[in-house]
Amino acid sequence: VNEALGTWIDGVVGGHVPADDRGLQYGDGVFETILVRNGVPRFLESHLERLRRGLTQLRIPFSDEAALRSEIGRAAAMAPPLAIVKLIVTRGSSQQRGYAPRGALDARRIVSLWRTAALDPELEQQGVVLEVARLRVPTPSPFAGLKHLNRLENVLASSDTLDGLAFEVLMLDADGNVVSGASSNFFLVKAGRISTPPMDRAGVAGVMRSVVLREALRLGIEACERTLTLQDVIAADGSFITNARIGVVPVRRLREHVFTMTDVARELQRHIESLDA
Amino acid sequence: VNEALGTWIDGVVGGHVPADDRGLQYGDGVFETILVRNGVPRFLESHLERLRRGLTQLRIPFSDEAALRSEIGRAAAMAPPLAIVKLIVTRGSSQQRGYAPRGALDARRIVSLWRTAALDPELEQQGVVLEVARLRVPTPSPFAGLKHLNRLENVLASSDTLDGLAFEVLMLDADGNVVSGASSNFFLVKAGRISTPPMDRAGVAGVMRSVVLREALRLGIEACERTLTLQDVIAADGSFITNARIGVVPVRRLREHVFTMTDVARELQRHIESLDA
Repeated sequence: VNEALGTWIDGVVGGHVPADDRGLQYGDGVFETILVRNGVPRFLESHLERLRRGLTQLRIPFSDEAALRSEIGRAAAMAPPLAIVKLIVTRGSSQQRGYAPRGALDARRIVSLWRTAALDPELEQQGVVLEVARLRVPTPSPFAGLKHLNRLENVLASSDTLDGLAFEVLMLDADGNVVSGASSNFFLVKAGRISTPPMDRAGVAGVMRSVVLREALRLGIEACERTLTLQDVIAADGSFITNARIGVVPVRRLREHVFTMTDVARELQRHIESLDA
Repeated sequence: VNEALGTWIDGVVGGHVPADDRGLQYGDGVFETILVRNGVPRFLESHLERLRRGLTQLRIPFSDEAALRSEIGRAAAMAPPLAIVKLIVTRGSSQQRGYAPRGALDARRIVSLWRTAALDPELEQQGVVLEVARLRVPTPSPFAGLKHLNRLENVLASSDTLDGLAFEVLMLDADGNVVSGASSNFFLVKAGRISTPPMDRAGVAGVMRSVVLREALRLGIEACERTLTLQDVIAADGSFITNARIGVVPVRRLREHVFTMTDVARELQRHIESLDA
């Protein structure tokens, strides 16, 4: 269900990258994971906007967005009904060793197309189980909000899901504040309002997260960014997680704490699923 | 002076890595930078020990150390009088997308050989200039001490050296404590004793750092790990930086603060330079 269908490196079909690429050497780059539904890359402009923001903040010169768009189009055109297009842009290859990016480097584009499956309808309806990651996220990250390639924290945190029943793990910072899921953003529902942690000290500011914040307002649901502790989460009426692939998915249980299914999560889930983009 | 002479991927000559390698996708791996002097990889056992420690902590199964050793030997045998052998071990290629490492993955070895130059004798003698990096390192890192592939902080911090006269930048954490140089460890000298920040909250525990701590004791120089602020640094008699390539190098100036040259730094520099390994 989760199979690579093709890879393009700087527009050329292939599956290999020079070993001196700074993405491999240092995680020096950014990425995006875009859901393609019936050939349409969802929320493409938001993904490209975040990509640009990341490249700017990492001071990676990038002038090939037109080429990148055409590669996304090519991948989407051959995608099955449900697929992921993953974009990586690295700072490119250094001719020299060393952290400092010396000389004029050419950013490298890596576009890959992956088959994906819809979320199990039972999980989509009944909600998923969350655990709390053992690892604590260090803060404040100078790259908070960006979807950069330094993702060891996410890798190690999500390893905690491998031997249990949890669909996702909630990552906390050293102060015990919620950051996000390992591969999702986290929202809680309380008295008909939704809130999610700010992404200014850690975490990835997900495209689906911003879609939810925007669409909530359109639906008349009050939404805000707010620091959340585990206590806040337990005291909530309900909660849900979001990412580009799964959209909005209610949380059924966090550790031993069972949530009720909230109308707000359902409404957002249905509404966002139904959006054209 | 800083040129790639060869690369071996899992023992095979070549310069390309599959795009689905988790080192590229997530920075999911570790590395070592080993100085090869007259064909001898210096402090090889310490480098391999740190590599093993990193792999264990990142839960990357690795059973190919014998092959890695033979690849290091092959690279060293064709090295010019002064060279770097860089090792990278990644978690390998996932057949599936996603942070969690699902299925049995084969770790990938990437060994490359680089020409390098001795440090400019003037810098070696007179010392180098340090600046303070603008970026603050988030703490506590769950991977403190490890030489893992998530090095964006080092990349961005060392970019600060590109347009100035500084040889290296000092990285601080959010509390203002010294972590290390962007590609070196930092020591200060005070009343004939040396101290360096502990590596339990951030930074890389350099092999040369541990060589210095060990050899200092042999030379009868008191050495300890201690939290250091910029104020401590300014109040010191002198300071020096260390890494596998440059060994021990005195710091001449930090921002406007000029250090005197200490006998302790000189003695350690000469002694470690003269070691056989």
